[in-house]
Formats: sequence, C-alpha cells, structure tokens
Amino acid sequence: MHDLLLSHLSKHISLSDEEAAKLTTYFEPKVFKKKAYLCRVGEIFREATFVDQGCFVTYSFDKNGKTHVAQVASEGWWAGDIYSFLTQKPSDYFVESFENSTVLQISKAGLETLYLEIPKMERYFRIIIQNAYISMRERMMAAMSKPAMQRYMEFLEAYPGIDQRVPQYVVASYLGIRPEFLSRIRKKLARR
Amino acid sequence: MHDLLLSHLSKHISLSDEEAAKLTTYFEPKVFKKKAYLCRVGEIFREATFVDQGCFVTYSFDKNGKTHVAQVASEGWWAGDIYSFLTQKPSDYFVESFENSTVLQISKAGLETLYLEIPKMERYFRIIIQNAYISMRERMMAAMSKPAMQRYMEFLEAYPGIDQRVPQYVVASYLGIRPEFLSRIRKKLARR
Repeated sequence: MHDLLLSHLSKHISLSDEEAAKLTTYFEPKVFKKKAYLCRVGEIFREATFVDQGCFVTYSFDKNGKTHVAQVASEGWWAGDIYSFLTQKPSDYFVESFENSTVLQISKAGLETLYLEIPKMERYFRIIIQNAYISMRERMMAAMSKPAMQRYMEFLEAYPGIDQRVPQYVVASYLGIRPEFLSRIRKKLARR
Repeated sequence: MHDLLLSHLSKHISLSDEEAAKLTTYFEPKVFKKKAYLCRVGEIFREATFVDQGCFVTYSFDKNGKTHVAQVASEGWWAGDIYSFLTQKPSDYFVESFENSTVLQISKAGLETLYLEIPKMERYFRIIIQNAYISMRERMMAAMSKPAMQRYMEFLEAYPGIDQRVPQYVVASYLGIRPEFLSRIRKKLARR
C-alpha cells in the first residue's frame, strides 16, 4: 500500500527501514469512488493527499459558471489544494476523483509531528513545495506568453497518458483554452 | 553583521553556537548602493539574498512600458526572484536597491552544501518557501477579488513604514492600481 509513496520519497531522501516503517504509520489509506470529493469550495483541505491509484482534478467555477482546472493529479502526485492545507483556510476549489482512487493521507498536525520524528521529511517537503512554487509560477507565466500548442505538449510531458483518462474539457481548462481549440491542436499534432 | 539573519533563523529553528558560527561562513556580506541592480531581466538570479539593511524592489515592464512591482523587500526579508534562483533560469525581473543596502548572499551550490552540513536549514527554508507559496497565491487571489483599500492596509501591515521609503508608484504598482487611485485611498485613510 505504501510502496509508491516510499519510492517517491526515495527520489529525494533515503530512509532507514525503521524510519520507513515508522513513516507509514502516519499515513492513512483511504478509498474514493469516482466522482467523490476530497474537498469542496469553502471547506478546509485538511489532509495532505498522496495519490496511490486513480486520478483527481482540482477546479473552480467562475461567476459565469465556467470551469477552471488548477491541477490534475494521478499516481505519485500530491493532490488537492496546498494553500488551504498550509493555511487551514477554506479552499477555493473542488477536488474530485475522476476515477476510483486510493490515496494516503496525513493531517497538518500529523505532518508537524512527523517533521519532528523524522527530520529528513523537512527536506522532502522543502523540495515538494519548491516544485509547487515553480509550477505555479510557470503556469502564471505560460498563461501570459507561451502558445497553446506548446503548453499542451508540456502538459503531455508532465502527465503522460493523462489526456486519455480525463475528459477533454478538463485538459482544455487546465491549459486555459476552449475545448474546440484543443481539438484543433490535437488534430494538428496527429497529422505531424 | 549576521545578527539579523541569525535572529530571523531563530524564529523557526534553534541553532547551537557552533552551528551558528559555521552557518555565517556560508553567507557573504555585500553592499549595494542605491539604484544598483541585484539582477536584471534575462540574468540568472544566482544568489539567495537576505536584506540586512536597506530596501530592494523586484519589478518588470510590460510591453507598454508599464512597471509591475512583484516584491518589496526590506530588513529581514529575502529579496529577489526565488523562481530564477531555484530553477537557475533567466529572471523576468529587475531587482534594484532603492536605498544604500547591505545584504548576505549564498549561491545555490552553497545552499545545497549548507543543507547537508546543517540539516536544520531544510526546515527553515521549507517554511520560507511555504510562506512564499502562500504569499504568491494570496497576491493572485487579491488581485482578483479584494478591494484596493483592503490590499493597501494589508500591505502596510506586512511592510510597516515601507510606504515612506519607496516612491508611491512602486506601492501602487505592487497593489495593481494607478498612483492617482492610491493617493485617493491615502487621503481617505488620513481622514479616518
């Protein structure tokens, strides 16, 4: 159950067998059926959530009812709303499972204890949060400058195969373009 | 010279005297005259920079030549472009000293060694980067929703006294409003 998490951790830190065994007791496995919510707008995102199997989409609606996708997370990613988790303020997002999914969860208090118990986890999450920071900045900049085709190709690179697992409107919204425009981009790429 | 940095560190971690002494050898003091650049657009922001004295403004110009202020950093803040530092990609910003300033700098390679030498620094920078993440998200959300008056009051709370030290157009740009509008807000607040 914890294999994928441990292999993800091992990319950044090396834990002893004892530390790994202790660590797993901090993470609670949980199952989410397709279309279940990890979190709804206005709720606090209370558990940091590592995706072991399945796929989650983080999104909001604007005042015109248009969907805005902020994140897609499949196996090996941390899903949900980091901002709400870190600040324990209500989330601006829905976090919904788009497949039957299993996850590993840890509360903020649990994580604070884990940092004291296994200080190497400071390094792991320092790197994870750095990456989240980098990715948020790149999304802001990409939305302003890069052509949609390039953004789509970078999306495919970051999330291999995911475009077959979530509906086209999710991918389009993530890229900040209309679904019809994404269709055209896909056709262009297929012809290459 | 390193007192302010050490007191800032002590908010988040406690270092032994030996660790503190070792740490200071990693940070190089440097002086920047008013109007000097820590970094220009297209350059890599190579040194994480802690402000010991003075004040720096991080900004860019859009294609119409309009200034956009991304950050104001005075004593006790980390100045500059975290994104460029973390990725070692060229910066989209100018980072300019708005007063005669002294800073403490550490390179990316130096910081990686420091993490191994004093692992407690992982915790410190995990928290610093978390805060940067939170603040970037709040700026994005504030730009979309909060009234300018509230944003200005939050700015004054976050940076006490700074509005007397940088020109009004810097503060206005940071808040994403026109300088004339900021003038009106200031007058309103003064009348309260």
